[in-house]
Amino acid sequence: MTHEEILTHVDHTLLKQTATWDQIREICDDAVKYRTASVCIPPCYVKQAADYLAGKVPVCTVIGFPNGNTTTACKVFETKEAIESGASEVDMVINVGQLKAGNDQYVLDEIRALRKASEGKVLKVIIECCLLTEDEKIRMCHIVTEAGADFIKTSTGFSTGGAAYDDVKLMAENVGPDVRVKAAGGIHSFEEGEKYLELGASRLGTSRLVSIEKKL
Amino acid sequence: MTHEEILTHVDHTLLKQTATWDQIREICDDAVKYRTASVCIPPCYVKQAADYLAGKVPVCTVIGFPNGNTTTACKVFETKEAIESGASEVDMVINVGQLKAGNDQYVLDEIRALRKASEGKVLKVIIECCLLTEDEKIRMCHIVTEAGADFIKTSTGFSTGGAAYDDVKLMAENVGPDVRVKAAGGIHSFEEGEKYLELGASRLGTSRLVSIEKKL
Repeated sequence: MTHEEILTHVDHTLLKQTATWDQIREICDDAVKYRTASVCIPPCYVKQAADYLAGKVPVCTVIGFPNGNTTTACKVFETKEAIESGASEVDMVINVGQLKAGNDQYVLDEIRALRKASEGKVLKVIIECCLLTEDEKIRMCHIVTEAGADFIKTSTGFSTGGAAYDDVKLMAENVGPDVRVKAAGGIHSFEEGEKYLELGASRLGTSRLVSIEKKL
Repeated sequence: MTHEEILTHVDHTLLKQTATWDQIREICDDAVKYRTASVCIPPCYVKQAADYLAGKVPVCTVIGFPNGNTTTACKVFETKEAIESGASEVDMVINVGQLKAGNDQYVLDEIRALRKASEGKVLKVIIECCLLTEDEKIRMCHIVTEAGADFIKTSTGFSTGGAAYDDVKLMAENVGPDVRVKAAGGIHSFEEGEKYLELGASRLGTSRLVSIEKKL
């Protein structure tokens, strides 16, 4: 695959808590220049970025991020506000504690509530693979499929580990035909990006690939 | 100071994203038994914990946690919902990126909005010291004082560092007389806890001291 082709799968991402608007604006400029799938930025910058980009690149943001243990009502509020502010993609974090306790219905109901709040927009569900057992990952593939989300996503990039080839393969094999896979966290090279795409990912959450391309 | 006395200053804390209700209930039981100042738990468990504790120990939760880069409107929603669900203390995270960009007015306005939303309850402001310069820490002491919050708090425990003696000393020296200091993150022993209290802290965010006391 060419670099250009791989970059069309990238959510160009800057989520760190110290990020200023100047840094987010640079992410936006680069996303336009290198034709990435979206910019993925913190909720507090969505309105400013959507106004600035004026439709040139879709704006993606994160919900209940990164710990996922806010309330469902809060995640719904955050989703609606983000969409009203111009986001066309939202990456939510599941409630990991409820999954660990076996309350799969809670996790499903929450994703369904966000599916409803984000109707017509792209909904990605972050399951934070590094904290889950294989059984929990497979249960999440079924729950995400049942809830009608667009994507299942490996990681926040803020926990103990990022994307892994085995996880992407497992997810691609266990989700339904309408659910795509996003690999995120620790993707450092075009070679790694291409490998994830070959294993079944459709999106890559990273800022590194644009950084590398800028230096070529 | 006796262990009992130090424990009255502890917000007995469990915020990790894998925490189940069974683990939170144990935190609640221990807080009652060891007479801590509060339990500090994720937003998704506030209602359950408040019902379970029935006023025996105050419930504290976290807002915009841990990255602080959600919108002000979302932080306000989260605060109101937490209080309606039974929280009597809320620990909010500032917008670090806005502080870094010199937008002190944004940071002040946001804390004021949460002060209004939490009227009559305890408001603590987490400034995440490990990410700030000395100048930024001192500016935050003034902003927190001006906004009328009850506490300034060192850390979330989810970033690159926790409480430090120098930070607590600096904060105690630079906040107004109505603002108290909470040290949180990496407090591992009663000796450390006592040192923080001597340096000017009034509260300690930790789960370790109760764990130690249970084993004695």
